[in-house]
Amino acid sequence: MDKANPRARSAAAALSLGAVAIRDKLAAGEFRATDLVEASLARIAATEPEVQAWAWLDGDHAIAQAEALDRHRESGRAIGPLHGLPVGLKDVIDTAKIPTLNGAALDEGRVPQRDACLVERLRAAGAIVMGKTVTTELAFLHPGKTRNPHNPAHTPGGSSSGSAAAVAAGMVPLAVGTQTGGSVIRPASFCGVTGFKPSFGAIPRRGVLMQSPSLDTLGVFAADPLGAALLAEALFGHDAADPATAPGPHPRLFEVARAAPPVRPVFAFVRPPGWDDAHPEMQAGLAELVQALGDQVFEVDLPPAFAQAEPERRRINFAEMARYYHRYGRDPALLSDETRAALDEGNAIPARDYLAALDWKPVLNAALDEIFERCDAILCPAAPGPAPEGLGSTGSAIFNGLWTLCGTPAVTVPLMTAGNGLPMGVQLVGQTGNDARLLRTAQWLCDWAAQ
Amino acid sequence: MDKANPRARSAAAALSLGAVAIRDKLAAGEFRATDLVEASLARIAATEPEVQAWAWLDGDHAIAQAEALDRHRESGRAIGPLHGLPVGLKDVIDTAKIPTLNGAALDEGRVPQRDACLVERLRAAGAIVMGKTVTTELAFLHPGKTRNPHNPAHTPGGSSSGSAAAVAAGMVPLAVGTQTGGSVIRPASFCGVTGFKPSFGAIPRRGVLMQSPSLDTLGVFAADPLGAALLAEALFGHDAADPATAPGPHPRLFEVARAAPPVRPVFAFVRPPGWDDAHPEMQAGLAELVQALGDQVFEVDLPPAFAQAEPERRRINFAEMARYYHRYGRDPALLSDETRAALDEGNAIPARDYLAALDWKPVLNAALDEIFERCDAILCPAAPGPAPEGLGSTGSAIFNGLWTLCGTPAVTVPLMTAGNGLPMGVQLVGQTGNDARLLRTAQWLCDWAAQ
Repeated sequence: MDKANPRARSAAAALSLGAVAIRDKLAAGEFRATDLVEASLARIAATEPEVQAWAWLDGDHAIAQAEALDRHRESGRAIGPLHGLPVGLKDVIDTAKIPTLNGAALDEGRVPQRDACLVERLRAAGAIVMGKTVTTELAFLHPGKTRNPHNPAHTPGGSSSGSAAAVAAGMVPLAVGTQTGGSVIRPASFCGVTGFKPSFGAIPRRGVLMQSPSLDTLGVFAADPLGAALLAEALFGHDAADPATAPGPHPRLFEVARAAPPVRPVFAFVRPPGWDDAHPEMQAGLAELVQALGDQVFEVDLPPAFAQAEPERRRINFAEMARYYHRYGRDPALLSDETRAALDEGNAIPARDYLAALDWKPVLNAALDEIFERCDAILCPAAPGPAPEGLGSTGSAIFNGLWTLCGTPAVTVPLMTAGNGLPMGVQLVGQTGNDARLLRTAQWLCDWAAQ
Repeated sequence: MDKANPRARSAAAALSLGAVAIRDKLAAGEFRATDLVEASLARIAATEPEVQAWAWLDGDHAIAQAEALDRHRESGRAIGPLHGLPVGLKDVIDTAKIPTLNGAALDEGRVPQRDACLVERLRAAGAIVMGKTVTTELAFLHPGKTRNPHNPAHTPGGSSSGSAAAVAAGMVPLAVGTQTGGSVIRPASFCGVTGFKPSFGAIPRRGVLMQSPSLDTLGVFAADPLGAALLAEALFGHDAADPATAPGPHPRLFEVARAAPPVRPVFAFVRPPGWDDAHPEMQAGLAELVQALGDQVFEVDLPPAFAQAEPERRRINFAEMARYYHRYGRDPALLSDETRAALDEGNAIPARDYLAALDWKPVLNAALDEIFERCDAILCPAAPGPAPEGLGSTGSAIFNGLWTLCGTPAVTVPLMTAGNGLPMGVQLVGQTGNDARLLRTAQWLCDWAAQ
């Protein structure tokens, strides 16, 4: 980076401002995509030795995309909604001619021929594929090399470890991950960024590692809900190759999220199963938030059936994993203990019990619908506490799997800090299909908290 | 029936002419719905002691519907497409305030509060719910009381035994059944009527006994493909309660089936897995038909993968049956040996193998699509031969399960007769979603064969 160059200085400074501010400055011509990518690469060079967020990164490849985008803009043609924004992609998302290893020893050397559907949409929107971010092994539990940017002795969470850490470290303004249990919300909470898991089926999964198709959900990372809305809107939409997606009008996530709510939002404070074991600082932080929100919050108890949700989600997850990771299971020596044990557990699940587990989703959602009639969002913890010390585990997803099973949109915003300086996320959950309203509510909460 | 009454005589004579002719005569005022129902009841009184097609029948209830329809017509209001036509309903289809026992001892005394979706559509179209027809136990293998109308020492086939037999005996012009393996096509072939199993998901299943939701398909019985088209068109269409159905334009089955094909249809003659064990008369009959059709037929071998289809279909069927018949399995003493053994087998199927079995459908359909590029329909046997002697088994469904798994529409037409006088069906299979074209092709074949 040429620090004498005012554009380069402006780009470097913008990197910490979030995707929307960067986009506006790019559009205004304060700096070019190339300046931004160079600033991003400089930031990566400074922080990557400690954070280890990237599974694959090639500066020349990123700069070549930026230069092409700058030429495109200089030609006077229309630019995309993500023009010039560098995006990190979890390494379970196929990228054409770029290694995609799924965090699996068996996939060493794997290079897809075709971009995943969402990568095609990213490129069409003018985004820059910055590189591939570290995933846990097969997007399951066994950690990759990434460390928490706030304290390298702590886990960044998983499985979208590198995506959360890269955004948290200011390396890229945006990143994409996946959640089958808690793999977007948990690392976002641990790393202190906004993580957004949209409604099930909102973002097509063609070209993304399939672990558990009844649960697998793509999600995004950004500095704030508005940035998440900007990225997610470019990725939403029906794809015939993914039966979980459905045709319909394209949601205007960004426009809605940027607008003020018509009335002050109302939150339903929920203590989900596992609450009693949560970190006292998480419990106290949420209690404080609830108190500060005053009459905008009511408390509600989830019906007893919700205590059954996580074992049922696990049954679905493990049974489908046993099916779709069959080829990985054929060479167990190449797998971690965590994954091997899950495949063994999954292989033993009877079809009858698996099918019974699938029936829980509509039952739980019927109960949630009654709550959503009275509020804009459910308010609950994003994780049991701050990121645990140690890199051997990615922490507990106890507060995430329920919402993945239900298919409800969920967003975590980094509004709290533990005594050890590590961030803690506040999770908001919306009604399925009402992603835009959830993001607007989450952005409102961030703006309110910043006042 | 008042035989001195010319309307009554006309109605009795019409009963053997098929649904379309009856509909036209009703519309023309040759007789009233009441005359027709009385003729139908007289025919039932004469044949039911031998055939035993009905699980529930109440003449007064049928006549009351007919009288209401006659009053409706006399008031000058528009009549429905099935105005006045008596329809038999397999006793796995819920009917409000009318017993629906599913052929199961456990359901003795069961009376649903609500009509199945298709029954609502039948009533809206002006049809008369004539009664409930005999099903095998839980629409599986254990036979009910019904006998083959062509020879009471022979099985009528199953599981839609009563629906096929009631139409074959001229008791009603139309009936509805279900197929999870071969439960529409097989009894239609054995009883010598037209049986039509539409594309998977064409007719909503809300209110119908769920055995295996990945396979369960509603189907219809009539004298000819045109009659089947008339009935099926009234039943097709999206229902939000059945995820297998999809919104879309309503197919004009009847109008298309009644029209002449734009060019002479082309058939792909297929010898499906099991062909070598088929009855020599079935093999010879089809060979003769193929020869007579001349250059309108080409022969094609299914790829080897199709030999795997039936065991995979069975895996799906039994695994889902173990789940959805769980409440029946709790009291095994109330179940037949056949059903109990299937539940035991289903309970032991791992979720992994069940999920793997689900993946066969698109693979098989990809191979079928190549065949359908070159023909109007696949031509193959509907059953291994004529109805076997004895009432202890409903015969083999070897030539049906493949098409149920694929979800392709299939129709059997009674074009052949075995040496013992029993009918044998010719099965035509079409491309998924192209039900109208299949029915038109089948009607063409019937008309051609009758020349």
